[in-house]
Amino acid sequence: MFNFLTLKSVAETLALLELFEPLPATEVPLAEALGRVLAEPFLAPENLPGFDRSTVDGFAVQARDVFGASEGLPAALTLVGECPMGQAPTLVIQPGQTARIWTGGMLPQGADAVVMLEHARLSESQGLVELTRPLAPGDNVILADEDAIQGRELIPPGQTLGPPELGLLAALGQKSARVRSQPTVAILASGDEVVPLDVEPGPGQVRDINSQTIQALASLAGAKTLSLGLAPDDLPTLSALVHQAWRTAEIVVISGGSSAGQRDFTLQALQAIPGAEILAHGVAVSPGKPLIIGRAGQKSLWGLPGHPAGALVTAEIFLKPLIWRLTGAREPVWAQSLTARLSRPVVSAQGRRDYFRVSLSRPDPQGPLLATPILGKSGLITTLVGAEALAICPEELEGLEAGALVEIRLLS
Amino acid sequence: MFNFLTLKSVAETLALLELFEPLPATEVPLAEALGRVLAEPFLAPENLPGFDRSTVDGFAVQARDVFGASEGLPAALTLVGECPMGQAPTLVIQPGQTARIWTGGMLPQGADAVVMLEHARLSESQGLVELTRPLAPGDNVILADEDAIQGRELIPPGQTLGPPELGLLAALGQKSARVRSQPTVAILASGDEVVPLDVEPGPGQVRDINSQTIQALASLAGAKTLSLGLAPDDLPTLSALVHQAWRTAEIVVISGGSSAGQRDFTLQALQAIPGAEILAHGVAVSPGKPLIIGRAGQKSLWGLPGHPAGALVTAEIFLKPLIWRLTGAREPVWAQSLTARLSRPVVSAQGRRDYFRVSLSRPDPQGPLLATPILGKSGLITTLVGAEALAICPEELEGLEAGALVEIRLLS
Repeated sequence: MFNFLTLKSVAETLALLELFEPLPATEVPLAEALGRVLAEPFLAPENLPGFDRSTVDGFAVQARDVFGASEGLPAALTLVGECPMGQAPTLVIQPGQTARIWTGGMLPQGADAVVMLEHARLSESQGLVELTRPLAPGDNVILADEDAIQGRELIPPGQTLGPPELGLLAALGQKSARVRSQPTVAILASGDEVVPLDVEPGPGQVRDINSQTIQALASLAGAKTLSLGLAPDDLPTLSALVHQAWRTAEIVVISGGSSAGQRDFTLQALQAIPGAEILAHGVAVSPGKPLIIGRAGQKSLWGLPGHPAGALVTAEIFLKPLIWRLTGAREPVWAQSLTARLSRPVVSAQGRRDYFRVSLSRPDPQGPLLATPILGKSGLITTLVGAEALAICPEELEGLEAGALVEIRLLS
Repeated sequence: MFNFLTLKSVAETLALLELFEPLPATEVPLAEALGRVLAEPFLAPENLPGFDRSTVDGFAVQARDVFGASEGLPAALTLVGECPMGQAPTLVIQPGQTARIWTGGMLPQGADAVVMLEHARLSESQGLVELTRPLAPGDNVILADEDAIQGRELIPPGQTLGPPELGLLAALGQKSARVRSQPTVAILASGDEVVPLDVEPGPGQVRDINSQTIQALASLAGAKTLSLGLAPDDLPTLSALVHQAWRTAEIVVISGGSSAGQRDFTLQALQAIPGAEILAHGVAVSPGKPLIIGRAGQKSLWGLPGHPAGALVTAEIFLKPLIWRLTGAREPVWAQSLTARLSRPVVSAQGRRDYFRVSLSRPDPQGPLLATPILGKSGLITTLVGAEALAICPEELEGLEAGALVEIRLLS
């Protein structure tokens, strides 16, 4: 009764997340697309910039006309006019001719390169320009299809849309982006001893921490959140609230009551959801052992530990990757396989994976990161404040020595 | 006229940012505090959890009563009742007595430890509990001031408020947080050839990219943004728009026209702001040489290059650290001094710092990151799409060999 029958390993538990499929695509206005994940490849609808464009202030030429030009032996060309900005020039460059052009201007017909102003001497009275540098065709020019070729894939699906991607979509006239839908995470905190933020706790009462931390974590991971408040430790009320959560959200999270004790109703409340299937109850992880993961179709059901640190660490390890999976997001390469040296020994237990909260420093700018474990019982919320990462002690070890190279996971 | 008189180095330019002071503190509701930066130390207004609390389901005892207890020789204690959840127990534990308690429950007077249910045998009929494990005082208990001691600093100023910090503030009854104000970045894109996103560009015209990219970057860095649209290359109109930006924002950004050519009006428009002082015009950096930084009192004035890549890279290198400085944010330790091996050689010029756009991979999970330069002219926006970092070629080098260890800067 008070022991979990079988604890799942961290790897087995993470593998369960693959039961959930990425959410469907949706169209969002470009102004709301920052941080969203592209659902389908974005192909260039047209060439970019769409015309041959000068990258400097100078003179448009036929490159062969300035072949061999130098300070001592400049090429003298006839100035036939000026290219207007934001319009197609009407003039045509014939051999022996040149025209003024500005940065960003469209090259006139006949021209294939631009001499920088610094390499030109203008003799206004004679209508001549002496050019003192040789050029190859294409010099100081961006060709009409050099930034993007019509039909080419410019942004792959799964790319998080950041500043350059939004810029490129704008450059190609996209007023919206096709991204993955965001899941809604409905959060319910259980426990007769928990009071809401705006209630002064009496003796034996504590304020609700988990609604805050899980909402913040889910929101940073890319989900929408819905806080359903507090539930007492009584099965009918809890079940009714869980039912409400299940109807409105893709991800249902209850913190507290996830263990296997007499007052723990989270498992039963989740099981009462139509079609619910419990995938894991109890994971060989510290903190966070009494974790519940279930599903009802493609909706995922979570019972997080009531201890604030256990709730936040399991959400970090398991809930965040689920949100990424649903939104199609990928963890950046630089955040994967990060390691650090441990500043002091830590003690763990064989058979479970321990996540130690650590602060990071880099005593030698060229050297590895140093991970300093933050001391305190694992249930304390203060051990997470200022923690920059979790350092991992794997299942097969009973602890780690000072100086050991440990895998770390950055906290958002 | 067409050369900058003096180019400032990247280090000199970054040093200019210290002329700007962090913005004043402001109070925001907790629900809006995620990602904001704490302006003042947060001291515990009270102890946390505020009472001695059980961390397990079990039996509250005086630890000395179970001294030496074992499976073979259990300590038999008289069960005197059950501790209610969310209330102060009225019962008192005398020597030889015990009471049921639940995870999170308040310890009764007299008790100083909790025996886990797994280590207890209940004989209901006799009103006795046999406890089979010894304990020390404090075992399976969080003491009243163990998570936080009243008056202690719990969160230092400069800490970005993430999930654990918000949880701690909630735990201590804070309905709001004292954070640094966010600056507003007003953005204006100049250029006669630039058209807004909703206009089909004619020959020689391009859509506005920089308003999108700079807004997105500033927003990710923690600023509010205000897009003022497009300005033509004509000094009176540009000046009027810049004046409007200066009145409404702490940071005024114009993209385009920042060079020293005949059609470049950005410098003059910024100089026309009352009290304006130009701090830099031209920086020894690629891309982005024609950068302007100025100030009018504590407001900063920026002329970014018109080339989308130059605008975005200079904003990343110079504007983002200014926003961090104003909001009090710090770059995380793990993002500093990052290095990677270069997959192929790159060519630079002595005397300027080159920022190459790279994608990152980690071919050996235990090995260093590999930085693969993205090819293409530096003005192309597509060279930034999918780039995960900028790799730095320092001023004293003319390039970097394949396999060289380079400093990288992660892109947001």
